Amino acid sequence: MCAKYAIGVDYGTQSGRSVLVELGTARELATAVKQYTHGVMDEQLPDGTPLPPDWALQHPADYVEVLRETIPAVMRQAGVSPEDVIGIGIDFTACTVLPVYADGRPLCEDEDLKGNPHSYVKLWKHHAAQKYATALNEAAQQRGEAFLARYGGKISSEWLFPKAWQLLEEAPEVYARADRIIEAADWVVWQLCGQETRNSCTAGYKAIYSKKEGYPSRDFLAGLDPRLADTVDEKLSREIAPLGSRAGGLTAEMAETLGLKAGIGVAVGNVDAHVSVPAVGITGPGKMLMIMGTSTCHMLVGEEEKIVPGMCGVVEDGILPGFAGYEAGQSCVGDHFEWFVENCVPAAYLEEAKSKNMGIHQLLTEKAAALKVGESGLVALDWWNGNRSVLVDVDLTGMMLGMTLLTKPEEMYRALIEATAYGTRKIIENYRAHGVAVDELYAAGGIAQKNQLMMQIYADVTGMDIRIGRSTQTPAVGSAMFGAVAAGKAAGGYDSIFEAAADMGRVMDRVYHPIAENAAIYEKLYAEYETLHDYFGRGTNDVMKRLKAIRAAQKQHS
Amino acid sequence: MCAKYAIGVDYGTQSGRSVLVELGTARELATAVKQYTHGVMDEQLPDGTPLPPDWALQHPADYVEVLRETIPAVMRQAGVSPEDVIGIGIDFTACTVLPVYADGRPLCEDEDLKGNPHSYVKLWKHHAAQKYATALNEAAQQRGEAFLARYGGKISSEWLFPKAWQLLEEAPEVYARADRIIEAADWVVWQLCGQETRNSCTAGYKAIYSKKEGYPSRDFLAGLDPRLADTVDEKLSREIAPLGSRAGGLTAEMAETLGLKAGIGVAVGNVDAHVSVPAVGITGPGKMLMIMGTSTCHMLVGEEEKIVPGMCGVVEDGILPGFAGYEAGQSCVGDHFEWFVENCVPAAYLEEAKSKNMGIHQLLTEKAAALKVGESGLVALDWWNGNRSVLVDVDLTGMMLGMTLLTKPEEMYRALIEATAYGTRKIIENYRAHGVAVDELYAAGGIAQKNQLMMQIYADVTGMDIRIGRSTQTPAVGSAMFGAVAAGKAAGGYDSIFEAAADMGRVMDRVYHPIAENAAIYEKLYAEYETLHDYFGRGTNDVMKRLKAIRAAQKQHS
Repeated sequence: MCAKYAIGVDYGTQSGRSVLVELGTARELATAVKQYTHGVMDEQLPDGTPLPPDWALQHPADYVEVLRETIPAVMRQAGVSPEDVIGIGIDFTACTVLPVYADGRPLCEDEDLKGNPHSYVKLWKHHAAQKYATALNEAAQQRGEAFLARYGGKISSEWLFPKAWQLLEEAPEVYARADRIIEAADWVVWQLCGQETRNSCTAGYKAIYSKKEGYPSRDFLAGLDPRLADTVDEKLSREIAPLGSRAGGLTAEMAETLGLKAGIGVAVGNVDAHVSVPAVGITGPGKMLMIMGTSTCHMLVGEEEKIVPGMCGVVEDGILPGFAGYEAGQSCVGDHFEWFVENCVPAAYLEEAKSKNMGIHQLLTEKAAALKVGESGLVALDWWNGNRSVLVDVDLTGMMLGMTLLTKPEEMYRALIEATAYGTRKIIENYRAHGVAVDELYAAGGIAQKNQLMMQIYADVTGMDIRIGRSTQTPAVGSAMFGAVAAGKAAGGYDSIFEAAADMGRVMDRVYHPIAENAAIYEKLYAEYETLHDYFGRGTNDVMKRLKAIRAAQKQHS
Repeated sequence: MCAKYAIGVDYGTQSGRSVLVELGTARELATAVKQYTHGVMDEQLPDGTPLPPDWALQHPADYVEVLRETIPAVMRQAGVSPEDVIGIGIDFTACTVLPVYADGRPLCEDEDLKGNPHSYVKLWKHHAAQKYATALNEAAQQRGEAFLARYGGKISSEWLFPKAWQLLEEAPEVYARADRIIEAADWVVWQLCGQETRNSCTAGYKAIYSKKEGYPSRDFLAGLDPRLADTVDEKLSREIAPLGSRAGGLTAEMAETLGLKAGIGVAVGNVDAHVSVPAVGITGPGKMLMIMGTSTCHMLVGEEEKIVPGMCGVVEDGILPGFAGYEAGQSCVGDHFEWFVENCVPAAYLEEAKSKNMGIHQLLTEKAAALKVGESGLVALDWWNGNRSVLVDVDLTGMMLGMTLLTKPEEMYRALIEATAYGTRKIIENYRAHGVAVDELYAAGGIAQKNQLMMQIYADVTGMDIRIGRSTQTPAVGSAMFGAVAAGKAAGGYDSIFEAAADMGRVMDRVYHPIAENAAIYEKLYAEYETLHDYFGRGTNDVMKRLKAIRAAQKQHS
């Protein structure tokens, strides 16, 4: 029997990456990366039109360019026959959204709109729609809208409705011309298979859609702005395709361009964190995947949709079809260590790292690893960038205590690692307290593979075994797996993502087991973290918010 | 009329310094410094006998050497006639104590005791008597001894009785041979005038002596150890000379050695912080002097002796004769900034300082000065070395909160400065709350003269004007003034330290006035500090102590 292959395309913030994966073995035969030609546009448009602060746009042509360059490249590298490539899947950043015509053509291609920022893709980290999010949240709270509880009590300014509302309010002529407002994930899939679909993941996590409840009501939207009343029906879609569905077959034209076979399976769109879950072999409840980078996403599925305070969202079919998908997160993980290295590491340490021919993170990690648990006498709250879960409060800030005149940089570095581990444990315990099981831990991402100290600390703090995803390109592999599911078993793929995960999910051999004596001391330290977490985070002492308010007022005056 | 002069000798931890001062003008005509030949002995004795951890000894011969070298040196430099030098005063570190024979000869000069650590001077920072201090405190608490309240509730291991008890217990043969156990301050005065005296300052602050209550009772001391019952009568003295007294006249032999006139006034011993008070012109209640260095001492006098929780001590005649002298302190001020610079300042800042040809403290101060009050969003507790006043708790540790990914080193540096200012305000408010007036602020010491940002912050935080002592050698000038008082008006000096202070006390022209808009914001920030101070410092959340206990346990295991 001939080996079959699928291609996964992982669209990040700066670039897109294609990986060609062998089905069954999960071997990654070839990889190609393309930086976006226009990158992130946060200062000006291609024609020089300047952008206000907090804007972040992209050019949709860049996404198609990724396909055109990287897919032929991986085909060349791998040297496999197009006959044996049976499917393609993509994952994207979200909510990353653009206005298009009924035929999928982006509005920004119109000559008269090239200088209009609203005609471009609003990237996930476009933060200029905050006032619309604030108004939406206030209205939802006032009306007691049930959907709020599904999103930890707050709709983010990054999500679809605030962005769409901003478009409507600030550029009504562009809004009017847009036949569709669509996630970039779904738009790229449309380019591949010629058919518009809306995936259950971004619809659920970013467009306030629920399989049971649908979208926010017409009434609610009209209350925000009468012109929003029919946005869902006019510009979005109520037909939502669950993850694991086939969006369509690759068009002949695209097949020609990419050097693939026409008609091969194209999976519905997906999101990087979510698509990673089956890639590490998770197929059901109780197994949490941490995707660890500058921030951490915690992905988990459960049998039923439960309301858990402080999660980022619960979405049926949002991660694996047939399950309630739970997402939580920590907004600052690797970012802590970058901040620390840039602002708090003395010159002597840099020299030592240089003389030992190692990176500064490696040196700090080595020194931190030599410390016993609790030896630093420090405890920190991991809130340098606010708290996403379970407090859902961007106005919280960092804290560290226990410093003495003998405190060393590696002790503070380790305290920051530990703080993020405590934050993860808090998320896990919060799920458990609300009836959602978390029995096993998985981790993926660069930190998880590289930083053994950190993973051991996470195992010791949570008291759980931790398995590490094998691939260094987990999202792309996950997307390829969804591509193989879109192809189906008859074509040499799989009939479900569960089959694919069982066959192709991979973790590394090394499992991090909690070390009993460390865990015993972390039990005490976590109790201290928890007390401080609640004291500063749940309103007993709102000092962080008051300081932030003073800071903001002073900044304004300067 | 011919100008008259006095010499002040300031004995520090590493060296002694003589300053020849012109009376009336307070001009410092000459200065000479002598490093102690044996320095601080904390590893071994001169004969190589090793010392255990926490020991810190000195050699008394070094003190006499200071006189022999520096006094002739200042006389030479100034070119004044010995006829016109009318008095001499000294100040010393305390409690710095040694065993001597009835004629003043140190036991460490005995050939058979040269290898016995207990025969030497136990320096103020000798910390090996902790267990005796602990036992003393426990017994005093159990018996409800009233003296505890005069010392903020705790007798320090650095003070006389713990050190004497250690001598008795660990070297009973040395204890037995010692006719006298005496402060180095008083011992040097003895060398100058040939007469043993005991000054009211060290007796009060270090030997638990009170003019009204005397020493701890025979009963109490016998309860600690029957052999301590008669220590006061056998080895100390119940005759206590108030500050401003004449200890005697310079002996003919010493006059010959030093190139001075025999019989000139020698003041009773004193302590550096205490002797500084009249040197800045303070002559009565309500004026607090902060002596700012690695740590800060707060000196203040009042009409009556009041019990103020958390001060270091209240002693009648302890600072100025006829007044209750109050001492409080912060154990970590300049030390915070040294720690920060050594552990938390990135290489880029060092390079910038180098390229601007300035010190790193200067660069950080410059950057910190450019910030508006509250702009950092940070608040810290200044407890990197515990809290001396008003919590009197060495087990408290540092805390900082408000950090974000944008927090810069200069913001943390400024937060540490502000934390020490809040600590000083807490001390001031604590005095006021217990009926001791604090109406004006004075500062002396290197930091006070050099760091304008810091002094402005102190003015803004306390809401008080701050005057800065003019001399860079305040203690030596103060000692010279006491020397002039020992000489008396008839000899061209003064009849009291009040006269001397009125005539010679000096502050710099620049006065730091609170800036109203800064003070208004600091009012809010201080409220935050106070809440955290009480939360972490007064038992609501003893996390710092629990972390320290875990740390100590883990250190022991390693």
